[in-house]
Amino acid sequence: MDVRALVFDVFGTVVDWRGGVTREVRRLLGPSVDASALADDWRGRYLPSMDRVRSGELPWTPLDALHRSSLDDVLADAGLAATPADVRDELVLAWHRLDPWPDVLPGMGRLRRAFVLAPLSNGNVALIVDMARRAGLPWDCVLGAEIVQHYKPDPEVYDSAPRLLALPPSSVLMVAAHVDDLAAARSRGLRTAYVHRPDEFGGQVVPPSEDPDADLSVSSFEELAVRLGA
Amino acid sequence: MDVRALVFDVFGTVVDWRGGVTREVRRLLGPSVDASALADDWRGRYLPSMDRVRSGELPWTPLDALHRSSLDDVLADAGLAATPADVRDELVLAWHRLDPWPDVLPGMGRLRRAFVLAPLSNGNVALIVDMARRAGLPWDCVLGAEIVQHYKPDPEVYDSAPRLLALPPSSVLMVAAHVDDLAAARSRGLRTAYVHRPDEFGGQVVPPSEDPDADLSVSSFEELAVRLGA
Repeated sequence: MDVRALVFDVFGTVVDWRGGVTREVRRLLGPSVDASALADDWRGRYLPSMDRVRSGELPWTPLDALHRSSLDDVLADAGLAATPADVRDELVLAWHRLDPWPDVLPGMGRLRRAFVLAPLSNGNVALIVDMARRAGLPWDCVLGAEIVQHYKPDPEVYDSAPRLLALPPSSVLMVAAHVDDLAAARSRGLRTAYVHRPDEFGGQVVPPSEDPDADLSVSSFEELAVRLGA
Repeated sequence: MDVRALVFDVFGTVVDWRGGVTREVRRLLGPSVDASALADDWRGRYLPSMDRVRSGELPWTPLDALHRSSLDDVLADAGLAATPADVRDELVLAWHRLDPWPDVLPGMGRLRRAFVLAPLSNGNVALIVDMARRAGLPWDCVLGAEIVQHYKPDPEVYDSAPRLLALPPSSVLMVAAHVDDLAAARSRGLRTAYVHRPDEFGGQVVPPSEDPDADLSVSSFEELAVRLGA
């Protein structure tokens, strides 16, 4: 493989969304709320909300706005309809304040020396920038859904990475903890690396340890650096 | 001013294009060529080449490709039509290898702690990423012409910064050494800071020391950090 750039799924692959959202829900709504259940419910509405944009039912809408809208439904279903608007706005920022998995910063520190690193996430640019500044993620640039106004797995998102990095698709490696994301990237000619993240769903659903269709399967970003010779 | 993000013109404002292009021309074409004259001629074709895209005469074309095309004319006019294609391709990368002015890295080191920093350049993403990795420029993300497929001073470029950073235009400060760039940014509601770069054109043309229409006029990024309290 002549890989020159690595592009990353973010939620679940780089950062622990469930742990971070649970922490912020607990902080903002108090100990009487089942915070992890609320995080799971909120995340469960993620794909359907993006599908409304992908289908054309909604015009382009950044992820922060989709999160804000789906939060209203989550709170209503949890009997928390009295939550004030300013608390709802602050809850949406939970997705900007997610911590990376423990191997991410050491692994990226090695990978960045050899490769261009960019997120290729459904998160909007401001969300990804806030997250990176808080966590110290050393992105070279921010690619992803909002840049092309299409959500993954629309092909426009994957195609934008080699186009904007001025590389052939086969020199771009997509890194993700989700086999469907990797399959969509592969169908556009990108190389693929699967990262096993057994704790993404709090142990309720354990993803496969490997993706047999990926070019690489690893269990950490440090292992990815070793496998890529970085 | 409630400024949250700074967006920067790059060629001339952040980096010394004339010094860097002259150095690369000398390295690749040898001492018999008037390298700084060639750099000036090449830069002179910059605005006309972008105007062909802005007018619709050409479809969207990244700056690397415009540089490659105008280089052919520059070399022909300089009696260097025999320059091989691989040398021409390498010459185009001169624009990826420009050094920042001496105050840039110390100034950005202070500014980045308080503000989101992004280029808002006509350079394509791969060019800006290569330049930043080589020079150590700490961008939080890469904004600019290629993201919206419009060249400055088209309003789409300026409008994209507050939109993608999820800020009101008045919270975004455009930093540039060129009063026309700042005027276009101001017309879209951005704040403006003028940086005096007396050596951009090798002393042949000296720009004004201040821009009376800008919110701030400074002579270095370090002064900018002081003035903004960073």
